[in-house]
Amino acid sequence: MTNNNSESPIRVGIVGVSGYTGKEVFALLLKHPKVRVTYVAANNTQGAMGEIYPEFLNRTSLVCQKFDIKEAAAKCDLIFLALPHTESMHVAPALLKAGLKVIDLSADYRLKNIKTYENWYGHKHADAGNLKKAIYGLPELFRAKIKKASFIANPGCYPTAAILGLAPLVSTRDDIQSIVVDAKSGVSGAGRKASVALLSAEINENFKAYKVLSHQHSPEINQYLSQLSGKSVGVHFVAHLLPINRGILDTIYVQLAKPITATQLHTLYKKFYKIEPFVRLLPLGSQPEIKNVVYTNFCDIGLAVSPDKKMVVITSAIDNLVKGAAGQAVQNMNIMCGFNEVEGLI
Amino acid sequence: MTNNNSESPIRVGIVGVSGYTGKEVFALLLKHPKVRVTYVAANNTQGAMGEIYPEFLNRTSLVCQKFDIKEAAAKCDLIFLALPHTESMHVAPALLKAGLKVIDLSADYRLKNIKTYENWYGHKHADAGNLKKAIYGLPELFRAKIKKASFIANPGCYPTAAILGLAPLVSTRDDIQSIVVDAKSGVSGAGRKASVALLSAEINENFKAYKVLSHQHSPEINQYLSQLSGKSVGVHFVAHLLPINRGILDTIYVQLAKPITATQLHTLYKKFYKIEPFVRLLPLGSQPEIKNVVYTNFCDIGLAVSPDKKMVVITSAIDNLVKGAAGQAVQNMNIMCGFNEVEGLI
Amino acid sequence: MTNNNSESPIRVGIVGVSGYTGKEVFALLLKHPKVRVTYVAANNTQGAMGEIYPEFLNRTSLVCQKFDIKEAAAKCDLIFLALPHTESMHVAPALLKAGLKVIDLSADYRLKNIKTYENWYGHKHADAGNLKKAIYGLPELFRAKIKKASFIANPGCYPTAAILGLAPLVSTRDDIQSIVVDAKSGVSGAGRKASVALLSAEINENFKAYKVLSHQHSPEINQYLSQLSGKSVGVHFVAHLLPINRGILDTIYVQLAKPITATQLHTLYKKFYKIEPFVRLLPLGSQPEIKNVVYTNFCDIGLAVSPDKKMVVITSAIDNLVKGAAGQAVQNMNIMCGFNEVEGLI
Amino acid sequence: MTNNNSESPIRVGIVGVSGYTGKEVFALLLKHPKVRVTYVAANNTQGAMGEIYPEFLNRTSLVCQKFDIKEAAAKCDLIFLALPHTESMHVAPALLKAGLKVIDLSADYRLKNIKTYENWYGHKHADAGNLKKAIYGLPELFRAKIKKASFIANPGCYPTAAILGLAPLVSTRDDIQSIVVDAKSGVSGAGRKASVALLSAEINENFKAYKVLSHQHSPEINQYLSQLSGKSVGVHFVAHLLPINRGILDTIYVQLAKPITATQLHTLYKKFYKIEPFVRLLPLGSQPEIKNVVYTNFCDIGLAVSPDKKMVVITSAIDNLVKGAAGQAVQNMNIMCGFNEVEGLI
Repeated sequence: MTNNNSESPIRVGIVGVSGYTGKEVFALLLKHPKVRVTYVAANNTQGAMGEIYPEFLNRTSLVCQKFDIKEAAAKCDLIFLALPHTESMHVAPALLKAGLKVIDLSADYRLKNIKTYENWYGHKHADAGNLKKAIYGLPELFRAKIKKASFIANPGCYPTAAILGLAPLVSTRDDIQSIVVDAKSGVSGAGRKASVALLSAEINENFKAYKVLSHQHSPEINQYLSQLSGKSVGVHFVAHLLPINRGILDTIYVQLAKPITATQLHTLYKKFYKIEPFVRLLPLGSQPEIKNVVYTNFCDIGLAVSPDKKMVVITSAIDNLVKGAAGQAVQNMNIMCGFNEVEGLI
Repeated sequence: MTNNNSESPIRVGIVGVSGYTGKEVFALLLKHPKVRVTYVAANNTQGAMGEIYPEFLNRTSLVCQKFDIKEAAAKCDLIFLALPHTESMHVAPALLKAGLKVIDLSADYRLKNIKTYENWYGHKHADAGNLKKAIYGLPELFRAKIKKASFIANPGCYPTAAILGLAPLVSTRDDIQSIVVDAKSGVSGAGRKASVALLSAEINENFKAYKVLSHQHSPEINQYLSQLSGKSVGVHFVAHLLPINRGILDTIYVQLAKPITATQLHTLYKKFYKIEPFVRLLPLGSQPEIKNVVYTNFCDIGLAVSPDKKMVVITSAIDNLVKGAAGQAVQNMNIMCGFNEVEGLI
Repeated sequence: MTNNNSESPIRVGIVGVSGYTGKEVFALLLKHPKVRVTYVAANNTQGAMGEIYPEFLNRTSLVCQKFDIKEAAAKCDLIFLALPHTESMHVAPALLKAGLKVIDLSADYRLKNIKTYENWYGHKHADAGNLKKAIYGLPELFRAKIKKASFIANPGCYPTAAILGLAPLVSTRDDIQSIVVDAKSGVSGAGRKASVALLSAEINENFKAYKVLSHQHSPEINQYLSQLSGKSVGVHFVAHLLPINRGILDTIYVQLAKPITATQLHTLYKKFYKIEPFVRLLPLGSQPEIKNVVYTNFCDIGLAVSPDKKMVVITSAIDNLVKGAAGQAVQNMNIMCGFNEVEGLI
Repeated sequence: MTNNNSESPIRVGIVGVSGYTGKEVFALLLKHPKVRVTYVAANNTQGAMGEIYPEFLNRTSLVCQKFDIKEAAAKCDLIFLALPHTESMHVAPALLKAGLKVIDLSADYRLKNIKTYENWYGHKHADAGNLKKAIYGLPELFRAKIKKASFIANPGCYPTAAILGLAPLVSTRDDIQSIVVDAKSGVSGAGRKASVALLSAEINENFKAYKVLSHQHSPEINQYLSQLSGKSVGVHFVAHLLPINRGILDTIYVQLAKPITATQLHTLYKKFYKIEPFVRLLPLGSQPEIKNVVYTNFCDIGLAVSPDKKMVVITSAIDNLVKGAAGQAVQNMNIMCGFNEVEGLI
């Protein structure tokens, strides 16, 4: 495996390049100085990348192919899997066996409890072995493990915004009474597949909640918050669909038993994220806006406290395709490969 | 058939109520004082209207059914056909035969030349007999014929905006050198069917031309402008897709051989549309905006002339679902049934 | 005063017709069969309504004037005040004294505690006398009083959505632990005044929270919920700005001490709103969408309960300019004048 | 002046960093490997860049100041002027005199005829001397001159799209009968100043033409096309406002006296733009889309020809803030400073 001192870039492939996250990984890697994209595959669309996606015209001569494990293994040192949930687990094992590093952007390796996975995703899990080995790729919490990992379960978009918003509080307070995560996402989060409900004329000038208290990202949030907290944490999670292309903003309500001042809260978050290159804590009185984080790998966080000091409101904003998917995946690659963590991302 | 003096409203049905135009006809008729909707049908979706389309909850108890010719004929005096092109021509004949009035919102009966129809729509025409009888439902040009008609070919959305924008000039000038129609439409014009190209994430913050010089509405525009002019007229028509739900704005460029002043042009249009309830000629210096016509049956028209007085720029704005489809269909119904022409539309 | 049996419509005026809510009142009244608009005034813009607002071209010959109390009193039976907060209280007293009915759409007469008003709106209250007499115009709660009223404080947009969403629960449960109202509004709620922060290029593709836990509509919500409950209720209210023109959707989280099943909850709401023409309770499993209520006076409500049955999630959607302002004002007028409550609104 | 072989980056300043184009120049330069931004100034807003514009938080420690010519000259080798029209001409002379390279993004130095400037911009021109020396910064046409220039008049957004769309045809055909440029732009083109007409609620879901046949960019287009053609060229130019943040798409109609086939046309354009890194000629049958060029410095061009081969339709798309302003300015800097032309732009 190449490292950051070598002259030659690592050889990277993307499987599932035709969806929004796959395309975003590809776009980021085209600008990454330590990487050469050597292989792109998709099941539904084949052909020159510049023809399939005119945004890549004159920027690449790569040809998108039907996935072939042997070719992938021969051409790549590391593979990003941007496949739909329940498909990754059928592809990852062979790639890992062939000695490649793998970063999986699907949900297949995020939930450690197989029953939970099967309940929420409605399919048998086919790869219990690698599930145990997969490292959850949230660098702000698991950087040390990611550094040594060869297989990453890249976090979901909603969990990234929610967990980063809650981590400092959940890991330090033992008086949390309840947590509400009111999450709003742009439409690219729903993926790139034909659907009447996602037509422009249905989404534009509209807004709605969906999967109220029953979104499949809830168990992912709960699992990692519980791990952080040392005891079981369960959030009340409601997803909403924003009529914009990119971005998630979470408004998170934490009811505490004991009071905290706004300044204490701000200090807590400042310390927690002190060394983080991609978490920006806003001054008290400022609120994150989606426009400030789109096309970036930043997570912006704002804080407020109720007059009685027992209700904390955390707002957390990311680009769902960048910090919520492709950008975080590249950040994980940078860590795994010993590159500068922000390489290609700032 | 009921007329406007009777107490009892006419009984009206809509076939194809699940598309955007069918739904719009239904919404307009719910508020129409002379009409009772007695029948709604669609092939893909059945059930209570208020359940299928929650916007109609508590506003109607009608149930959408699979189309049945006998039921339609028994329950209705007049039928709106809001079916896809090439389907209407298989449904209209039986309804007409059963003695119903029919207003067809598809393209099946607009082009008088069968070959032209078959070239542009790629299907054999199945009903040459009624094609000859169908009256083109553009009231501003054909009101007298519509009054006596029992079968209406309701104009396309693009042709409505283009023909109303051009009619005064084309019907009076014999020195027209060339006509460019640069048309921009909201996405509801593309219909309500699953499609990756029409996903919100593909349309939002985007804009493009499509079917450049090859849109199937060109021959419809050319046919009726030629009829108006008395000689063959051929426009250069380019369609564009706006990231909005409703509305068409045409910018029309007419090159003349002889000069015309802005005032002369304005006077010409003012006279031509003097009695029209739904055409609003703006003062010189003002330009129509889509927001002023959405959810209305108005066509707003603006005029400008180049310094050399030989290039005329006409801008014409409508709501593609109202004046460009459902509203115009209701206007035609009003005329056919002897109602006040603006009933239910203002 | 005219009543609903008389032939002649009542004469109505609008003061502040140049803002979004004033224009919306005007648009609704143009279609109202029992009303004749006889007077429109605005301080910043004067001239023919059809010239100032081309959407009204050919629909009215009214001329917008500088406000004059004598003229208003002479020409009108009832006045809608669509003025900015802190201006209404200087205009309402003279109109009331002149014997007119007044519906005030500003916040000036909603808060019964003058200190609270002065704290939140930053101005001395100038009309304590009428403040006591003003009836809060939320028909679902105060219909009987509205019927006899001559002066209405029309509810704020956020309070309408929040109070209608919470009323059934707050008026019946004594085990409410905490209430979070996560409210999202379209931009017309911010009014029609030049501002860099409200430019299209700042709002489009953006989303943010604002006035977190400090919005001036909070005390209005708390006051009327407390009145309903019989004891002090304080909600945690966070406002957000949606990149759409119209509509509010509230996601409301109520933590209960004792469990309630989804069916019990649904039954409670069903009974509470049984006779209401403008509240539509959705079936369990369905969620309101802004697109289903825009341009209507409906408030759509959806319900969900957490697995432990102690967290209730209520979603409530309105058009901020209609049920949240102008439509509700017209509904109040209908009630005050003995018209059918839905006249001009359905 | 530093050159591309030296180790130390050049020192660059931006004056007028608070508008949309100034901010875009700043954002591009932050990622440019050969440049160090040493000075930013704006007249209306001062303070840390990361506080004024939270999108730059943690990405820069620069402080925006009131413009001071001495400080600017001392700290910079090259200055970008992103000031409003009629302001640049009062700032550029002193900077040039101090020996700095200057790239002016305003319209002040684009029109070579002072009378024309004064007619269209309504102000006396204050700097006739430098007007003569300014090089029009359209690299595809004037690269050789730009290489040697120390003062650049950076092209307008509309002229960039129109001239690049027309250059191959205008420079080779002598049978052009008329040219129509139907241009559509996103709202950032209108700048960042408080205005009711540019409020989100006025723009969203709207579309309109403006300055029909009277836009101040027309003389700029005409001047450079005439220069290319060798004889006077006058386009009929109509601007339209798209409800999106970024992007221009021009649909250009050229009436020829003699026929040209689509293949001949495509070959002509292919040769003309053979070596251009930022012009992408699409295959026949494909049309540019704004989404493929936003956030890039590309100009995408599509071609079509009418059946009679005498009407050519050229579609041309750019990001108005990048290739139409800041990106092109950086491209010019790269050329002037001997950097790789695409440095920091791909």
